[in-house]
Amino acid sequence: MTHDTQTLLLELFVIFVAAKLGGELFERLKLPAVLGEILAGVVFGPYAMAWVIPSSTVLSIAELGAIFLLFTVGLETRPKDLLKVGREATGVALGGIALPFLFGFGYMELTRHPVHESTFVAAAMVATSVGITARVLRDLNALDTLAAKIILGAAVIDDIIGMILLAFVVGLATAGGVQWLQLIVLIAEAAGFTIFMLFVAPRVMRRVSPNIGRLSTHNPQLIMALTICLGLSVAAQKIGLAAIIGAFFAGLTFSDFSPRWNLQPRVEAINEFLAPFFFFTMGARLDLRVLTPDLITAAMIISVLAILAKVLGCGLPVWGRGREVVMQVGVGMTPRGEVGLIVALIGLQMNMISPGAYAIVIFMTAVTTLFAPPVMRVLFRNRVAEQPQPEIAELGTSLERDIRTGLAASSGKAGDSETNG
Amino acid sequence: MTHDTQTLLLELFVIFVAAKLGGELFERLKLPAVLGEILAGVVFGPYAMAWVIPSSTVLSIAELGAIFLLFTVGLETRPKDLLKVGREATGVALGGIALPFLFGFGYMELTRHPVHESTFVAAAMVATSVGITARVLRDLNALDTLAAKIILGAAVIDDIIGMILLAFVVGLATAGGVQWLQLIVLIAEAAGFTIFMLFVAPRVMRRVSPNIGRLSTHNPQLIMALTICLGLSVAAQKIGLAAIIGAFFAGLTFSDFSPRWNLQPRVEAINEFLAPFFFFTMGARLDLRVLTPDLITAAMIISVLAILAKVLGCGLPVWGRGREVVMQVGVGMTPRGEVGLIVALIGLQMNMISPGAYAIVIFMTAVTTLFAPPVMRVLFRNRVAEQPQPEIAELGTSLERDIRTGLAASSGKAGDSETNG
Repeated sequence: MTHDTQTLLLELFVIFVAAKLGGELFERLKLPAVLGEILAGVVFGPYAMAWVIPSSTVLSIAELGAIFLLFTVGLETRPKDLLKVGREATGVALGGIALPFLFGFGYMELTRHPVHESTFVAAAMVATSVGITARVLRDLNALDTLAAKIILGAAVIDDIIGMILLAFVVGLATAGGVQWLQLIVLIAEAAGFTIFMLFVAPRVMRRVSPNIGRLSTHNPQLIMALTICLGLSVAAQKIGLAAIIGAFFAGLTFSDFSPRWNLQPRVEAINEFLAPFFFFTMGARLDLRVLTPDLITAAMIISVLAILAKVLGCGLPVWGRGREVVMQVGVGMTPRGEVGLIVALIGLQMNMISPGAYAIVIFMTAVTTLFAPPVMRVLFRNRVAEQPQPEIAELGTSLERDIRTGLAASSGKAGDSETNG
Repeated sequence: MTHDTQTLLLELFVIFVAAKLGGELFERLKLPAVLGEILAGVVFGPYAMAWVIPSSTVLSIAELGAIFLLFTVGLETRPKDLLKVGREATGVALGGIALPFLFGFGYMELTRHPVHESTFVAAAMVATSVGITARVLRDLNALDTLAAKIILGAAVIDDIIGMILLAFVVGLATAGGVQWLQLIVLIAEAAGFTIFMLFVAPRVMRRVSPNIGRLSTHNPQLIMALTICLGLSVAAQKIGLAAIIGAFFAGLTFSDFSPRWNLQPRVEAINEFLAPFFFFTMGARLDLRVLTPDLITAAMIISVLAILAKVLGCGLPVWGRGREVVMQVGVGMTPRGEVGLIVALIGLQMNMISPGAYAIVIFMTAVTTLFAPPVMRVLFRNRVAEQPQPEIAELGTSLERDIRTGLAASSGKAGDSETNG
């Protein structure tokens, strides 16, 4: 093949291996794999060892990775789930959006950053990345607790509102500040798009879905999902939103059909291939020269604010449930992840934030993600003691189910008595 | 996101939809979907309607598509399968390689094409694309016939030898004609690579495979397969072979583990996303201005030679099985596909073949692919009559299995008596 392809394949191979080794190393240290993939980008990227200087093709593949990442997040988000813990989850989500944005914006403004930079950094502090929390909860066998249900419900609303907020921020930036007419048009478009995707698209899907299976194409459901993912990404861009918003809503539209059509493992496979390029290049964009003592101080303050804002903002709405649930929900909502990173990336690409502010967001993402898991293990420590031994969990017999059910029942009671006490 | 990403996403969306609509249309006309995807590229590409002029990023993604295509082919190839019909399948494969190459090379030389162009066109005529045949056989419920088993066994050998041949042709071209020392080194490297992948790699995999599941990374088996796919593609390129050869051998190495690790549907999903870009850009590269009456005549002659060479070359080794099996095997081996197209693409990129010769290969691929299915339906017509009704096939009960088994048993006898008669 051509010289370009030769270089490209080698580049893809080196990035893929470096990212996955970083992820594996972090997993073994009981740290989130995503941070290992980002760190690999920092270490091997242009600002440190300079082994890999991502080409424009790799950066494009990385952005495709971001689209499939949000498509997967959407696929795994069930709007129906939040109905079960509806009101409390909504309160938690709203508190967890308002406070981080206010804290972030306030601090950035106080330290005399430009308004657009403050807005982007604040927006990057909003969206919870519930993936890490969900994994810790699963490891602790605590997915059936009240706190877990509220966290997962709130994360759905959080994602949706986070996307809408991103739309506004990007619109603000595109409109170049306060050009009111353009901004109003954009807000109307974003609102229209969101309402359409949340209320009209599901009905269209219910009507259309039986016909998709009748197509003669191989794997028609997967092909249709990929088409809609690409199509809505383009549509979102066309009306001035970020492409990932379209991809997220595309995932949301297919989430009800995902189990029946076996979409999740297959889209996840595409994601497994593309996402490492996204996380690696996120790290590779981190200009280490901006890491002055002042910036590190600012990054640490922002990180502490990001944690406090979620603990308070998400904890207060469940105050009546007792201190344990308050802390579990508050801490469980702190990890930031892909959405925040993408907000920062868009800001960097649009020259709306400086490399320094970009570094602050990466730092904040790392700190919040590292903070939550160990603290959650302490907060859910009753669960750890009750957790079935791995040997039992792997039995896979009816005996095991009985044991698990018994444990769940007894721990459910224990949880109730604690909440009442 | 940046302007580049905007354009790229729109481009990817348009290509994906156009390719898939072309495929769907062809499927409904009972024609191979792949040809519809290529035709979409011809129609919307730069030489006809010029709606899409593939950017360099899209061409890179298309080449990634070729790599995953061959990785999938490798995954679905079981070296063990050919042991069952070993000697006959080997004869069929060798005959089906020698004759097409000789016929193609001879005709191109007679019509005074340069040696390197003749070599590439001849090499593109070699590899059977058994996917279309296998699908027709499945539709006809004839996968359990002797002819089907020989075809599928021969296709495995055919793929492997086709890959080795491609390695030599690329090596010849890289060495710039007859630079003997370079050529000998390359042949040694290609042979070493092939022997290593066929005999050493499977043993390494058997040793290593239990440890892969112990990695902490999510989906460790898929990640390992993707890593090896990218790594062997790079390795193949480094020693002067085509990247797809590495991808094919990577697939072959994992083929034994594919069912247990559920690799096939997941790699297939990546392939479903990337392959349309490969086939579309194959079509988009077809310069319609080269289609002079002379070229069309040449393309038709090459196509007829491609069919005759496979029918004779694959039919003769099974002469003792009677005329029906001879024709079934001969015709079943005629379709050419992705391997031939990639050979032509590499030739075009290396300036080893002219746009005219590239057009001849595309034309030949289309003709052989269109020729086989209807003729096979006639040759296997006894099977069509015996095929269970779709309603029965969809029952999915034990009754259905009984009916199918009964049919298979009775038709097996019928097949035997015909062969003897």
